[in-house]
Amino acid sequence: MSEKIKVAVTGAGGRMGREVVKMVLEDASLELVAAVDRSGAGQDAGELAGLKPCGIIAASDLDLALSENKADVLVDFTVPSVVYANTVTAIRHGVRPVVGATGFTPQQIEELDGLCREANIGGLIAPNFSIGAILMMQFAAKAAEYLPHVEIIETHGDQKLDAPSGTAIKTAELIAQGREKIKQGNPDEEEILPGARGGEYDGFRIHSLRLPGVFAQQEVVFGGYGQSLKIRHDSYERAGYMPGVNIGIKKVMDYTGMVYGFEHLM
Amino acid sequence: MSEKIKVAVTGAGGRMGREVVKMVLEDASLELVAAVDRSGAGQDAGELAGLKPCGIIAASDLDLALSENKADVLVDFTVPSVVYANTVTAIRHGVRPVVGATGFTPQQIEELDGLCREANIGGLIAPNFSIGAILMMQFAAKAAEYLPHVEIIETHGDQKLDAPSGTAIKTAELIAQGREKIKQGNPDEEEILPGARGGEYDGFRIHSLRLPGVFAQQEVVFGGYGQSLKIRHDSYERAGYMPGVNIGIKKVMDYTGMVYGFEHLM
Amino acid sequence: MSEKIKVAVTGAGGRMGREVVKMVLEDASLELVAAVDRSGAGQDAGELAGLKPCGIIAASDLDLALSENKADVLVDFTVPSVVYANTVTAIRHGVRPVVGATGFTPQQIEELDGLCREANIGGLIAPNFSIGAILMMQFAAKAAEYLPHVEIIETHGDQKLDAPSGTAIKTAELIAQGREKIKQGNPDEEEILPGARGGEYDGFRIHSLRLPGVFAQQEVVFGGYGQSLKIRHDSYERAGYMPGVNIGIKKVMDYTGMVYGFEHLM
Amino acid sequence: MSEKIKVAVTGAGGRMGREVVKMVLEDASLELVAAVDRSGAGQDAGELAGLKPCGIIAASDLDLALSENKADVLVDFTVPSVVYANTVTAIRHGVRPVVGATGFTPQQIEELDGLCREANIGGLIAPNFSIGAILMMQFAAKAAEYLPHVEIIETHGDQKLDAPSGTAIKTAELIAQGREKIKQGNPDEEEILPGARGGEYDGFRIHSLRLPGVFAQQEVVFGGYGQSLKIRHDSYERAGYMPGVNIGIKKVMDYTGMVYGFEHLM
Repeated sequence: MSEKIKVAVTGAGGRMGREVVKMVLEDASLELVAAVDRSGAGQDAGELAGLKPCGIIAASDLDLALSENKADVLVDFTVPSVVYANTVTAIRHGVRPVVGATGFTPQQIEELDGLCREANIGGLIAPNFSIGAILMMQFAAKAAEYLPHVEIIETHGDQKLDAPSGTAIKTAELIAQGREKIKQGNPDEEEILPGARGGEYDGFRIHSLRLPGVFAQQEVVFGGYGQSLKIRHDSYERAGYMPGVNIGIKKVMDYTGMVYGFEHLM
Repeated sequence: MSEKIKVAVTGAGGRMGREVVKMVLEDASLELVAAVDRSGAGQDAGELAGLKPCGIIAASDLDLALSENKADVLVDFTVPSVVYANTVTAIRHGVRPVVGATGFTPQQIEELDGLCREANIGGLIAPNFSIGAILMMQFAAKAAEYLPHVEIIETHGDQKLDAPSGTAIKTAELIAQGREKIKQGNPDEEEILPGARGGEYDGFRIHSLRLPGVFAQQEVVFGGYGQSLKIRHDSYERAGYMPGVNIGIKKVMDYTGMVYGFEHLM
Repeated sequence: MSEKIKVAVTGAGGRMGREVVKMVLEDASLELVAAVDRSGAGQDAGELAGLKPCGIIAASDLDLALSENKADVLVDFTVPSVVYANTVTAIRHGVRPVVGATGFTPQQIEELDGLCREANIGGLIAPNFSIGAILMMQFAAKAAEYLPHVEIIETHGDQKLDAPSGTAIKTAELIAQGREKIKQGNPDEEEILPGARGGEYDGFRIHSLRLPGVFAQQEVVFGGYGQSLKIRHDSYERAGYMPGVNIGIKKVMDYTGMVYGFEHLM
Repeated sequence: MSEKIKVAVTGAGGRMGREVVKMVLEDASLELVAAVDRSGAGQDAGELAGLKPCGIIAASDLDLALSENKADVLVDFTVPSVVYANTVTAIRHGVRPVVGATGFTPQQIEELDGLCREANIGGLIAPNFSIGAILMMQFAAKAAEYLPHVEIIETHGDQKLDAPSGTAIKTAELIAQGREKIKQGNPDEEEILPGARGGEYDGFRIHSLRLPGVFAQQEVVFGGYGQSLKIRHDSYERAGYMPGVNIGIKKVMDYTGMVYGFEHLM
């Protein structure tokens, strides 16, 4: 990688954006060339990230920023309302989008794939950039082919609104694909406390714990004849996504079309 | 302990009774003096337990067996329908009952305590003889005084009928006694899958997993500011009760009255 | 599978052999046709396994037993001193060997592969028939490609002689193949208690715990930026091998040549 | 607690000091009255902590700061070289010291206890303010009285210099006090990889893992007849000490003399 990859970052003053800026500044093979942040416009992107100034002043408009600075990749972790438009803007500028978001429809992804192919560039949209979490999901799906008795336990901070978590549901979907369809447990089992047996998904159960001090944890437990297999992922902080984003930035340079899901790059 | 403690065993051919016979025969400070088993009557108690003959032939009637053999302690793990009568019979013979059972009413225990005191002997009734499980419950109760955010996860074999387990409910009762009364979780939280958040007990949650290959497991998880504390007990087999029964046999020699709960001997 | 697979078992009165007999008798698609056991010769194989009589009387000589009874598969979990000869005998009779053993040399396996191919039958030799343990090893090897910081913790019964366990060393070998070669930990780290940091294998560490009440457990822990991934296998009893042996018996019918390692059938 | 407790903080610009300032400012029953920080002198203590200004300007000298501002409690998490002098200074001003430090000698603690008693105030020195970690140690010590087969596994960040951790050694000391003296494991056991069985402490073993992404974790595992008991504490961040410091500030108001060890307040 003789030449540095030129990276632009949106939401550079937000929680994820600041981590992205930090990660880009710390990797000698990457170069920060533009930063966009509505409320932080005019400030130095390094300072927005809690570091010393880096010389890149945050702009307020992505289109303008990409016109004025030649970028190879745009990293975008902004909110659902603007992320689609940002992705289109990037592709129009020939800039490869690396996007962390969950709300895209299959139709939108197909459209963006078409735009990427026209522009002859790659793109990446991923709901999850955590390498460990993706491995956990892949392993769980594989194990379920052999050990169909399975339960999922996920733990998140106690102010989370929805249960189960998106990762737990995604894991359950992957497990269900290869698992022999059985309804686990005793057919006559009785819940003395309603809900004790968890939420049912396709014949197996998901349990959601909510405790202060926890960022994100998930354990998938398989039970077999005289044995159990457990696959557990603990995420301690938002920064755990950055190694995945870093790999995404580098891999997106090497293919054409829009990839949905970081697991397809592994 | 210069003299051996003389032990009688009921249900000597049953699953727990056989373990008791084995344990008594293996401890040089104990002596098996009588065994009772309706369907195994006439057979050697050692052979019923899968060992070589020990010279004690199983009788069919407890009253008769205790008349013919001087015993210090009766160990009884029989079924609810006969255990109360067996306990009374033992006390009437001046034999200290060590009983594994859950179904006694407070009134029955009080009556048995009176009978023990009249006979000037000790007695022990315990739903749980597992030292590790009792420590888990004691520790969980203590931790809840300092860390009120708690969830219980219990796992049992997949043919178990009731959820949560008796141990989980007992643990929850003990936790509730010293825990600050708070309703955990986000007040606006939403279960996408009904039951995902588990069964509620006094503001905290219990989750029941049912998997083949598991005998009995429980984990109590506490979440605090930047930390979590977990107390976990795994029981691999019925024989895990025997060290507790052994301690019970020895301790019941030293006090008067009926003790309910093995934890009071720890 | 319209016709039953005819199974012969050696060491039918030994610890593993009895489990094999039980498993064969319980599977309607398998038929026990011969049993060999030196010390149990003349007894019914069902009774040797602690079940009711099954009509197959244990023989003392494998060669004779296979001459008198047409078998499809021989399951052999006997001791290193006889297992090679047994395997050759089976192949000479056109009987597919399914062997649980660790001591074969690469040369022996190659020879047996040749014999199988000449006889146009399949064979299977596996040090480990536990599906969960094999999945654990495969997942650990895969994860190490992405998360090179890894430690292995294995726990076995407290009377085990060697540390680390064979499974831990096998896991370490598989991890080392795809893992970036780094020496983990602080180069200046100091052991206040010698051995605290465990045994080193190719730059990472293995820790062996020995505790009563445990059969076999292993956890592989990966640490990354803000996250950790754990893969854990708990084996509760010898019987945990049987689902793997059962699969082995069925799969060995469908290929030619000797397969070494159950993982190649998954 | 009708009146606020007046709190002074040393090292207010350091890693722990900033957390203390934050905690004090967020608790309505506490009032920050003074802050000391050599390199941050002249700056607002709230700003040093990354919050908005709170009106307390950091001073450079503790003696002067305590002369000018009436404080009830001094919280000191500074370095070994100054912490003893700071503690003496506080007591001389009639200010109760709450100190996080490990290096005090028994003689120093006795002297400080004498000074506290002369001044008729309380004081607290604690190597560990983590409530969860202290509960873990207390539970481990108690469990070891009943289950003498035990191993400790501790995990810290991969740049830590010493192994085992101070917490692991402290836990081992507490376990050793009540545990039956046995040397665990098979007397003939053999380490194929030197160090695999961990570091020995009084007949049991300690295992130290070092992985990136981990702050501080410890698990104490007990093995018994057919069961295991695990007590695990995971610390995610430095801020995990603050609930303990908060309790310390409030409890130190109610007694006289120097207490060494937060566990004595639980």
